[in-house]
Amino acid sequence: MPRKDQPKYFEDFVVGETYEHGSHTVTREEIVAFGERYDPQPFHVDEEAAAESVFGGLVASGWHTVAVCQGMLIRGRPDVASMGGRGVDELRWHRPVRPGDTLSVTTEVVDKRRSESVTDRGYVDMRVTGLEGDGDPVVSWTVLGMIGRRDSG
Amino acid sequence: MPRKDQPKYFEDFVVGETYEHGSHTVTREEIVAFGERYDPQPFHVDEEAAAESVFGGLVASGWHTVAVCQGMLIRGRPDVASMGGRGVDELRWHRPVRPGDTLSVTTEVVDKRRSESVTDRGYVDMRVTGLEGDGDPVVSWTVLGMIGRRDSG
Repeated sequence: MPRKDQPKYFEDFVVGETYEHGSHTVTREEIVAFGERYDPQPFHVDEEAAAESVFGGLVASGWHTVAVCQGMLIRGRPDVASMGGRGVDELRWHRPVRPGDTLSVTTEVVDKRRSESVTDRGYVDMRVTGLEGDGDPVVSWTVLGMIGRRDSG
Repeated sequence: MPRKDQPKYFEDFVVGETYEHGSHTVTREEIVAFGERYDPQPFHVDEEAAAESVFGGLVASGWHTVAVCQGMLIRGRPDVASMGGRGVDELRWHRPVRPGDTLSVTTEVVDKRRSESVTDRGYVDMRVTGLEGDGDPVVSWTVLGMIGRRDSG
């Protein structure tokens, strides 16, 4: 395992490995700020309209929940030699996130393989789960990552 | 088709219908602001590190690209009686978004069906595509939506 301050390359990922990262308490202010900019549905931005909605109160945009988890994930593993993501499969919102909810994130390496066409990278797929409090899942997805190879120089 | 200022319910969606929404030019400042908060990888937040990266310059977080498209989508259809999303399938980032890129978004209704278990809603799945400039796809995904039914009162 490489040191925390050295890049973690494709070769260093092991299928089945799990990680836990971060803890972030979501505030009313950040729910509304994200909602106003990126997802201005009434139940994300307007307390009164949210109270009348199916949610019965203000809830975070599902994309905001994902973004908060992504922030914890990157801060938890700043050393990964990432070359960006190809995409995401099976993203599911299990329940809404409300002001005051404290989130954390777990990841599990579910697949890895060398690129056939490009020698400087490999594909690493990770299952990401955002959890509230003691472990109630709020969101999960599989990210299809590209990670640089150490042996490519 | 209901008027723009009236809710668009489950019954109003037609499989195969397409929409086009919005136009937003992504700035360097918003790429860095989103990156610092939600995806602090060097190529999203640090101009010099980005120049040395596989991207050769600053690029938007893939989640930022999604969020910008979501904002255009919601502003383009503020009237939908949405009850939130169940999830997303097959999200793919086709190419990075860079400062100055102008994005728009298209959606297509790909499936709809009544909920078997809950009478107040139906499921509407939409294929969403974010485009740059004259139509180069940058991101696409299928959102699994829940839409209120008019006949449920």
